[in-house]
Amino acid sequence: MGMLVVGSVGYDTVWTPLGSGTDLLGGSATYFSISASYFSSVSLVAVVGRDFRSDDIALLKNHGVNTNGLEIAPGKTFRWSGRYNPDDVNLRDTLDTQLNVFSEFEPSLDREQRNQEYLFLANIDPELQLQVLNQMERRPKLVAVDTMNFWIDSKKPHLSKVIELADVVFMDEGELRSFSEEANLVKAAKVIMAMGPKTVVAKQGEHGVLLFEHGSVFAAPAYPIERVVDPTGAGDSFAGGFMGYLASEEDTTDTAFRHAAILGSVMGSFAVESLSVEKLRSLSYQDVVSRFRDFWMLTNFNPLGSEENLPWQTKNDAIYQ
Amino acid sequence: MGMLVVGSVGYDTVWTPLGSGTDLLGGSATYFSISASYFSSVSLVAVVGRDFRSDDIALLKNHGVNTNGLEIAPGKTFRWSGRYNPDDVNLRDTLDTQLNVFSEFEPSLDREQRNQEYLFLANIDPELQLQVLNQMERRPKLVAVDTMNFWIDSKKPHLSKVIELADVVFMDEGELRSFSEEANLVKAAKVIMAMGPKTVVAKQGEHGVLLFEHGSVFAAPAYPIERVVDPTGAGDSFAGGFMGYLASEEDTTDTAFRHAAILGSVMGSFAVESLSVEKLRSLSYQDVVSRFRDFWMLTNFNPLGSEENLPWQTKNDAIYQ
Repeated sequence: MGMLVVGSVGYDTVWTPLGSGTDLLGGSATYFSISASYFSSVSLVAVVGRDFRSDDIALLKNHGVNTNGLEIAPGKTFRWSGRYNPDDVNLRDTLDTQLNVFSEFEPSLDREQRNQEYLFLANIDPELQLQVLNQMERRPKLVAVDTMNFWIDSKKPHLSKVIELADVVFMDEGELRSFSEEANLVKAAKVIMAMGPKTVVAKQGEHGVLLFEHGSVFAAPAYPIERVVDPTGAGDSFAGGFMGYLASEEDTTDTAFRHAAILGSVMGSFAVESLSVEKLRSLSYQDVVSRFRDFWMLTNFNPLGSEENLPWQTKNDAIYQ
Repeated sequence: MGMLVVGSVGYDTVWTPLGSGTDLLGGSATYFSISASYFSSVSLVAVVGRDFRSDDIALLKNHGVNTNGLEIAPGKTFRWSGRYNPDDVNLRDTLDTQLNVFSEFEPSLDREQRNQEYLFLANIDPELQLQVLNQMERRPKLVAVDTMNFWIDSKKPHLSKVIELADVVFMDEGELRSFSEEANLVKAAKVIMAMGPKTVVAKQGEHGVLLFEHGSVFAAPAYPIERVVDPTGAGDSFAGGFMGYLASEEDTTDTAFRHAAILGSVMGSFAVESLSVEKLRSLSYQDVVSRFRDFWMLTNFNPLGSEENLPWQTKNDAIYQ
């Protein structure tokens, strides 16, 4: 089924210990769209400036991304620059943010976009997220929301309204704690679920994600990568694989959500292996299947796959005091 | 098969957001022994002072721990006190450390101890760890080592010798990075494995562990606990379950090590649910089995348990650009 993403498309200038580049294609909607495109059709709503390269539009189109909603406005494209810490690539300093045309962004959905059944509201102003929700002609089957500390601190009432209307909330651990005012992650997830969403995805960077649902918790590790070239976009690539898989399956069981979390982690692991979307854009079906298998090998500890075949269970339990 | 642990036994004074207590039974060898006792026989080598409570010796003995090697020396028992951060229970401040009789500790093994086949060298001075290794009459089947940043910074040459002689190295992420001088965890583990050990257990606190072996990586999550009362001893309880299971199975396959990592995580998850060893000391066989099952539910994403049954694999792969 069709998927709509509303977010940013921009150019990033990035320094990491293993690479650097200027005006690299980036933005939450970019990473999300390319990642999701491996699983489902995607329509994108975002704004860029007149300096946006036509090559980059072609790249999105080649991935089957519907770019009718990519507005080209007078002015310059959104730009971000940052430097990752050489001792801990999970930490970064933002050096510069130029909103440019993004500062006037007013998402306006056409008829087709208003009827998409899967909706991802990437990390943008919660007031814009609400505007998008209000434009939908019918309630999508699945609404997922991402955000950041800046909005938690500055627009919590609006963000709370968005969360109340969402099915799936993506936040990193710090954001979850900050939003819920609960230090414990299980309690923090419960605060969100009590507001409406049935699923909370707690993102833990290089430690993977925890998927909280009523009555179920699932831990998906991150794939241990020896050459983390550029962590930019990992979270949006995760969300793209997660949502793209769910849209392709039209299945909302716990099993489907667990597969979605692993496929999200698969896509996130590819994203960090290159600058920008270089690796993410050039995957084959076999690459995705092969890394899915790698995740199975990474986490599986019961080759017989059954609760009935626990180890040591037939042992004398007299040793248990 | 028999297991020997050499480490500390002491009294902890602890403040956490969910509890506090004075002179609580603690120490690396204490947590390790009680945890391992659920799986195998354990002999302990440590020193305490004349103020050590006979109740606490009885507790160890009731768990089948052989306390012949628990020396009772003139003077006071080792004491540590610390306070955990209310906003992040993974962070703690050490308020006071009194080595007392531990400052003169010289482990001396009797005949039986020198012939144990599984050896855990808990976090003590690497020179003492080497003394213990030198006293073994034959090379144990499995030697595991724990350490801390203090020894990495102050006695790296001695610690390196211990590591060269070990099969399994337990370190937290920061220690691994610091010892190996590699920011990337995969590279850091390779540095250790190149020194001799076949297994590196990278401890990640509330994010679980990564088990590195040649040609295999296994990610075991930590169990999400809503009431983390006291994280003290979690790592040693992990090591106890890990080593205790391996000693009981006499199996060194990758599968056995993965089960060991999960059972270590099971025991670590119990340890943090109470102050001191209160919860850890009072488990039933069913408690352990039940939480092992919980871990299976926490991580399993392929109910069919087979690589042959990947999701979406039968789909049209035309969507893959």
